[in-house]
Amino acid sequence: MAHVLHVGALGAYSDGVSPGPSTALLTDQYELTMLSAALRDGTADTPCTFEVFARSLPPGRRYGVLAGLGRLAHLLPGFRFGEPELEVVSRFLDDTTVQWLSEYRFGGDIDGYPEGELYFPGSPVLSVRGTFAECVVLETLVLSVFNHDSAIASAAARMVGAAAGRTMIEMGSRRTHEDAAVAASRAAYIAGFDSTSNLEAVRRWGIPGAGTSAHAFTLLHTGPGGPDEAAAFRSQIEALGVSTTLLVDTYDITAGVRTAIEVAGPELGGVRIDSGDVGVLARQVRDQLDELGAPGTRIVVSGDLDEYAIAALRAEPVDVYGVGTSVVVGSGAPTAGMVYKLVEVDGIPVEKRSAHKTTRGGSKSAVRVARPTGTFVEELVFPAGADPDDAVAAAGHDAADVLVRTLPVPLVRGGDAVAPPESLDAVRARVAAGRIGLPWEGLTLSHGDPAVPVRFVSPPTSGGHS
Amino acid sequence: MAHVLHVGALGAYSDGVSPGPSTALLTDQYELTMLSAALRDGTADTPCTFEVFARSLPPGRRYGVLAGLGRLAHLLPGFRFGEPELEVVSRFLDDTTVQWLSEYRFGGDIDGYPEGELYFPGSPVLSVRGTFAECVVLETLVLSVFNHDSAIASAAARMVGAAAGRTMIEMGSRRTHEDAAVAASRAAYIAGFDSTSNLEAVRRWGIPGAGTSAHAFTLLHTGPGGPDEAAAFRSQIEALGVSTTLLVDTYDITAGVRTAIEVAGPELGGVRIDSGDVGVLARQVRDQLDELGAPGTRIVVSGDLDEYAIAALRAEPVDVYGVGTSVVVGSGAPTAGMVYKLVEVDGIPVEKRSAHKTTRGGSKSAVRVARPTGTFVEELVFPAGADPDDAVAAAGHDAADVLVRTLPVPLVRGGDAVAPPESLDAVRARVAAGRIGLPWEGLTLSHGDPAVPVRFVSPPTSGGHS
Repeated sequence: MAHVLHVGALGAYSDGVSPGPSTALLTDQYELTMLSAALRDGTADTPCTFEVFARSLPPGRRYGVLAGLGRLAHLLPGFRFGEPELEVVSRFLDDTTVQWLSEYRFGGDIDGYPEGELYFPGSPVLSVRGTFAECVVLETLVLSVFNHDSAIASAAARMVGAAAGRTMIEMGSRRTHEDAAVAASRAAYIAGFDSTSNLEAVRRWGIPGAGTSAHAFTLLHTGPGGPDEAAAFRSQIEALGVSTTLLVDTYDITAGVRTAIEVAGPELGGVRIDSGDVGVLARQVRDQLDELGAPGTRIVVSGDLDEYAIAALRAEPVDVYGVGTSVVVGSGAPTAGMVYKLVEVDGIPVEKRSAHKTTRGGSKSAVRVARPTGTFVEELVFPAGADPDDAVAAAGHDAADVLVRTLPVPLVRGGDAVAPPESLDAVRARVAAGRIGLPWEGLTLSHGDPAVPVRFVSPPTSGGHS
Repeated sequence: MAHVLHVGALGAYSDGVSPGPSTALLTDQYELTMLSAALRDGTADTPCTFEVFARSLPPGRRYGVLAGLGRLAHLLPGFRFGEPELEVVSRFLDDTTVQWLSEYRFGGDIDGYPEGELYFPGSPVLSVRGTFAECVVLETLVLSVFNHDSAIASAAARMVGAAAGRTMIEMGSRRTHEDAAVAASRAAYIAGFDSTSNLEAVRRWGIPGAGTSAHAFTLLHTGPGGPDEAAAFRSQIEALGVSTTLLVDTYDITAGVRTAIEVAGPELGGVRIDSGDVGVLARQVRDQLDELGAPGTRIVVSGDLDEYAIAALRAEPVDVYGVGTSVVVGSGAPTAGMVYKLVEVDGIPVEKRSAHKTTRGGSKSAVRVARPTGTFVEELVFPAGADPDDAVAAAGHDAADVLVRTLPVPLVRGGDAVAPPESLDAVRARVAAGRIGLPWEGLTLSHGDPAVPVRFVSPPTSGGHS
C-alpha cells in the first residue's frame, strides 16, 4: 500500500501540508501547570532530554513492536493552541503561560527507532530534546499514541507468527473505541495482518479492505415459511459475485455448506465459520467441500480467536483467520507501558531515586548486535555522545564477528520533520525483518523473558556517565 | 457539571445543531456489502429490530454500567455519506448502493436503557427498529461506543466502590489511544470519579480538571550542585498557590515531606506518593505531616492502582486516589462484549441456531423488580408488545410487594432524538443509585455471578412467542 492520507473529516489528520485540527488538549493538565511554574522560575528554557521507553514488556512477552510514529508525525504539527484551546487553559493558567502557549510550536529535535522496529525493556525508542517547556507538554500525546499502537502491533505480531503465513483479517472495530479502531487497524496491518474491515482505515491509511457477511443477512431472509438460507446466499452471490465468502453457521453448518455450493457452484470463494469448535468444523467442512467438488473454496474462521487459538488451528485446513476482539485490545496487554521521562537537564543526567521506578539518566543511543547470520544477540544502550563502535567494543564484541545497526534515526530537527514519510508497507517489512532476527525462543508464544537482552554500556572514551 | 459541549476541533462532535464531521466510515465493510445485496434482492426495506446486549459480563464481574449513549447521540447524526465517504465506498459498491448511501439518514426508532443504568447478561440495552438497510449500517459505530465506554464505566464503578467515598482522579490518558482517552475520562466520571487530568475531556464534557506535578518538574531543578527539591517545591507553590499538591517521592520521601512543609508551611494542600508500598508510606507520611503541624494536608496516592489496590488502602490515611492505567483499559476487561443482533424480521422473531451463540429472538422490553427497600430482585425481559404488569405477574410477583421500573426509554422516533440530553451529573447520579440498589454481594470485588438475574418471561396475554 502506498502512503495514503486524505484530509479526512474525522480526527486530527491532515495531508501534511494544511494544518490539521488542534491536538493540544489531548494532554494532561499538570503538564501545563508545571510549564507555568517553570516559566515563572526561569527554568522553562533549560535544555532537556526526555526519553520514551518501556520499563518492561507485558508479562511473558518476548518482544515489543514499536508502532505509532507515523500517526504521531501527523498529530504533532497540530499541537498548537488556537482560541478554543486557549479559552480552556486560561481557566487555570496565568496570562504569561497562556501567551506562551499561544505562540507554541515545538522547535527541538527528536530521534527515535523507526516505526516497526522491535523493542525491549529499556530500549530508548524516542528521544525528545529541546527546552523543558517545549518538551514537557508533549508527554501525553506521545505516550497515548505509542502505548496504544505498540500494544496492538505487539499482540498482532504474535498472531501473525501463529498463523504461519495464512491470511489474517483484522475485524475488531466494534470491540474498541471508534477512533482507536482506526489506529488498531493500522497497527495490525504493519504487524503483518493482510486487511481490515474498517472503512476509515481503508480511507485514511490505504489498508486493503475486507469483509464477508453477518448472521443478520442470513436471518433477514426469513419468511412466514421459516429461514431461507439459500435465498440469502443467492442474493449475496448475485450482488458480490461467486468469489465472495458465505457465512455457513447461522443454522446447521453441514446444511449451510451444502446450500452454499448448490447456490454458488464449486467456484465459491470461501465459507466462514464463526462459532463452535472451529478446528473440528474446519476439517469437516474441508472434507465436505472437497467431496462437493469445491477444493478451491477457502475456509475462513473467526470468533474469539487469539494467538493461542490461531496456533492451535495450525494443523487444520484453515485458509483465513478473521480476528476481532483480541487484536484490538492487545490480547491481554492493552497498553504498552511506555513512559516519557526527563533524563537530562542542561547536560546533567538526572534520574528518579525513589523505590521501584529507577530510570537511568542521560541522553542515550542504541545499537542492535547480531550474529553474522542476522540473529540478534543483544541491544546495547550507551550515552548519546559516544561512538557506537566504542560501545560495541566496550561490550566485549569483536566488530569483525558481529553485525551492528544503530537503532535511532533523526526524525525532527529544529521542529521540522527530517525523516521522509514511510509507507505502511515499508514499516510492515521492518516488523517482518525484526521477527526474522529474533532468536527462535523469541517467536514462541510461551511466556518467558525478553528475547533480546538490553545492556547499558558506557565506553571509556565517551565522556558519558557510568 | 452542566451538559457542556463545544464545537471542538477534534473528533466527531457537534453542538447538536451544526452537523458534525461524518462518522459513516467508522464501520465495517461487510455492513455495506450486505446492504448492497439487500438492495438488489428487495429485502432492504424489510422492517427489522436489532438489539444490543451482552451475552455475559467479563469473568467474575457482578454488574455492568451502561455508558456511551450521550456520545452516540452526538455521533449518530454524523452518520451521513458525503463526497469523501462516497468516494471510498464506490470502490467496492455498485452505483445503486452508493446512491442509496448518499441519501442515507436513519429514519427509524430507538429505545434503550438510559445512560448510567446497570445491565446484566441479556439486558436489552438498546433496540433499533427500522428497515434492514437503515439499521444494519449502524452496527459497528453503536458497538464501538457502547463496548468501549461501558467497559471503562464498569471498571471505574468498582474502583469508586472500593474507594468508599474518597476522592478519585482519572489520570490514564497516556495509557490509551488519544481519543479513547477523552471518552474514558467521561466514562470514569459518570461512574463516580471526581475529576480528570485530560484537558479535552474538560473542554468537551465539562468534567472538572485536576493535576498535581510530575517527577520531571522536580528533576528539572537540578544544578551542578545536584538536586534541589526545595527549589522545585518553591516554584510550584509560587505558581499555583499553597493549596497545590507536591510530589514528594522523587528522591527520599521523608526528606521530601519535610522539605514540602518547610517550603509551603502547614497549609499545604497535599502531597502525592507515586511509588513504593503506598499503604505503609501513607501512614508514615500522615504521621510525619501531623507531627509537622500539617494535619490538613491531604495525601494523594497513585501508581498502578486498580480496584483491589484501592480497596487494600481503605484502612490507610489516603485522601485521594489518582488512577491511571487500570481505569482506561477497563481493569482486565477492556471491552464490554456487547453485540448488535437482528432479533425480528417483519414481525417474526429470528435467532441464530448454531453452537454457542444463542440469541433469543423478538423485540424485547425489560423491567427491574426490587424489594420495597429498593434492593433489586431480578430483571424481567419480555416481548416488547407485552404489558409490563403482565410480565411481572407472569414472573410470579405480587405487584403490591415489589417495586417495578421499566428500563428502556424512547430515544429516537422517526430518526429524530426525542429524549432530552442529560447532564453528565444526572447520568452519574443514576450509576450511584444503581449501585445502591444492588444486593450486597453485588458490591464486593470478589469474583462471582451477576448480582441480578435476568429472566425471560412471556406473559400469556402478550401474544409474543415463548
